[in-house]
Amino acid sequence: VFNAKKAILESKIKNFKSLPKLSNIVKSESSSILIYDEKLEKVDRRFSKWTNQFDLAIKVRAGEKLKSLAMIEKVSRMALKSSQNWSRKHTCVYVAGGGSVGDFGGFFASIFLRGVALVHIPTTWLAAIDSAHGGKTGLNVLGLKNQLGTFHSAQEVWIVESFFQNQSLERFEDCLGEVAKMSLLDRSIWSHLKTRLTPSDLIRVLPRLIKAKYKVVTQDPFETEGLRIFLNLGHSLGHLLESHYKMGHGRAVRLGLFFSLWLSRKKGILSNQNHAKLTSKMESIFGFQAAELKAFRPPQRQKMNQIILRDKKMSSQTQLQFVGLKGAGEPILLRISVAEFLDLTEEYWRSL
Amino acid sequence: VFNAKKAILESKIKNFKSLPKLSNIVKSESSSILIYDEKLEKVDRRFSKWTNQFDLAIKVRAGEKLKSLAMIEKVSRMALKSSQNWSRKHTCVYVAGGGSVGDFGGFFASIFLRGVALVHIPTTWLAAIDSAHGGKTGLNVLGLKNQLGTFHSAQEVWIVESFFQNQSLERFEDCLGEVAKMSLLDRSIWSHLKTRLTPSDLIRVLPRLIKAKYKVVTQDPFETEGLRIFLNLGHSLGHLLESHYKMGHGRAVRLGLFFSLWLSRKKGILSNQNHAKLTSKMESIFGFQAAELKAFRPPQRQKMNQIILRDKKMSSQTQLQFVGLKGAGEPILLRISVAEFLDLTEEYWRSL
Repeated sequence: VFNAKKAILESKIKNFKSLPKLSNIVKSESSSILIYDEKLEKVDRRFSKWTNQFDLAIKVRAGEKLKSLAMIEKVSRMALKSSQNWSRKHTCVYVAGGGSVGDFGGFFASIFLRGVALVHIPTTWLAAIDSAHGGKTGLNVLGLKNQLGTFHSAQEVWIVESFFQNQSLERFEDCLGEVAKMSLLDRSIWSHLKTRLTPSDLIRVLPRLIKAKYKVVTQDPFETEGLRIFLNLGHSLGHLLESHYKMGHGRAVRLGLFFSLWLSRKKGILSNQNHAKLTSKMESIFGFQAAELKAFRPPQRQKMNQIILRDKKMSSQTQLQFVGLKGAGEPILLRISVAEFLDLTEEYWRSL
Repeated sequence: VFNAKKAILESKIKNFKSLPKLSNIVKSESSSILIYDEKLEKVDRRFSKWTNQFDLAIKVRAGEKLKSLAMIEKVSRMALKSSQNWSRKHTCVYVAGGGSVGDFGGFFASIFLRGVALVHIPTTWLAAIDSAHGGKTGLNVLGLKNQLGTFHSAQEVWIVESFFQNQSLERFEDCLGEVAKMSLLDRSIWSHLKTRLTPSDLIRVLPRLIKAKYKVVTQDPFETEGLRIFLNLGHSLGHLLESHYKMGHGRAVRLGLFFSLWLSRKKGILSNQNHAKLTSKMESIFGFQAAELKAFRPPQRQKMNQIILRDKKMSSQTQLQFVGLKGAGEPILLRISVAEFLDLTEEYWRSL
């Protein structure tokens, strides 16, 4: 039986240059289930052959629709029928795909036979940087994201370079919000970045970004000690934008980061000078534009209030926790009232 | 966010004599969801009134059919719709019912908002003695029991005496298998029992039985260290009977206990004299009859093999872990081959 806390502390990252290196590395003493994004068959013709080494390989269609209890039921039935042919004592679930496939496959691994081992093979930038390492799984209900979920960390995360070489530029740009967030939270990464980031730069920075994420996650695996809340830098406004405009997570977060810096200056914890420096570096390194938000109108106040209240990071009905910055690598938790947050959001929007 | 391991170590049992004492004890700073067995409204007319103190009260029909992902989806939708009216930061799920309601409600609490606090209010003997304390939740798939589940312990377990006073004799008898098992695992309880056990005796012994269960569970909350496997005394044959004959858990376990004693003697770890003593005390204290098994034919060998292989306690495809007894309070783990287990089962059946 799986011990999530132990797994977080012990989880290992393995780097592979290309898909052939992934062959025959599934441990033979375990029973293995692979859940994979159907698109991978098109990315690399060798992928289909590679799936043969598993006791069961289940193809899924990536996207938010996958993350449902109905799909968990379907996959559970397939796994149980198949498991009549293998020992279930040491089952391991391997999940190859982006964020949605990872959330779904991780959830399945966390409840199948009361929890089995998990290996993540992220195939998108965002998953490789962020979701594969957090130990969080999630399903959607009533169109609301991640309302059901568990904490279940991968024992290993396999980073296969060749999956990223063929990623679209759109996918690359979508991950930059999280890259910028982790860089703002880690002074050494922030100072390391000097010029406009390219995909091949990112492959080189990847290990440092993941290390920075693990540093926070391992100190607070179950989100009980408050440290992990710093990973929500930029997410207060980010979630609002994601929810109201169905905006992609990466874009929502990068707009949220500018707001975090603005609010930190407004509250007097970030100097005018540092605010200008950080903002302009965000624009030059990542190509972000704070003014991009002007294309959207602020949602109605009542609507914003409703979305905010749904956020699990709320400290009460009227107070919320906001991650501000004193400088690069210096996050700080601000408790502000929902009313003030809404006032400041509206003021920020007008100021652009 | 909920920390299951911490909860197991800190979980408290509260005793209440009657339902009125349960009034207004729900913490006001938490948002509260009650999931309860619809039958309770008939047991005590005050129950409906009592449910008013919760932010949301969801009535369910007890039974194995409840334990499905489809019902989890339904309850999740109700909870999410309702939760627009309360803060979700400190949500607590209260579950009032027997084993199936507890397994279901516990599973829901473990995945709702990635896990919220849980209070069990067991209303059947078996739940009060066994399932409310184990921290295990479970759902069924393809008609197979508990194939999906989580570890999620109640922070508190409330034992309300008045629920047990009106229980049917059948329910009482159904719990005696687990009572006998815990007594055989704990020498002090075993010696304490002298005369035929009545429901009012059981109310008095309840705290000791629960304490004995916690002693094992807290040493091995996630079933990783092997100690918890002792709680499977009598369950190898028990599960076979439950699965093949749709026999109640209590009856299956009590027949399984006689087999465990017989097998322990057969393997030379329990003397003939002690075997006779333990067997006859089981018959006089609990009114069990080992010969009851004669009413059933042994399943076909291939069928038995199939059921055994499905058991999560299997150590491999060919070996299984069997809990034997050297004496009262002295369980011992035996590794025997599946073939030998099947031989011995057939031999035992013939010997009755």
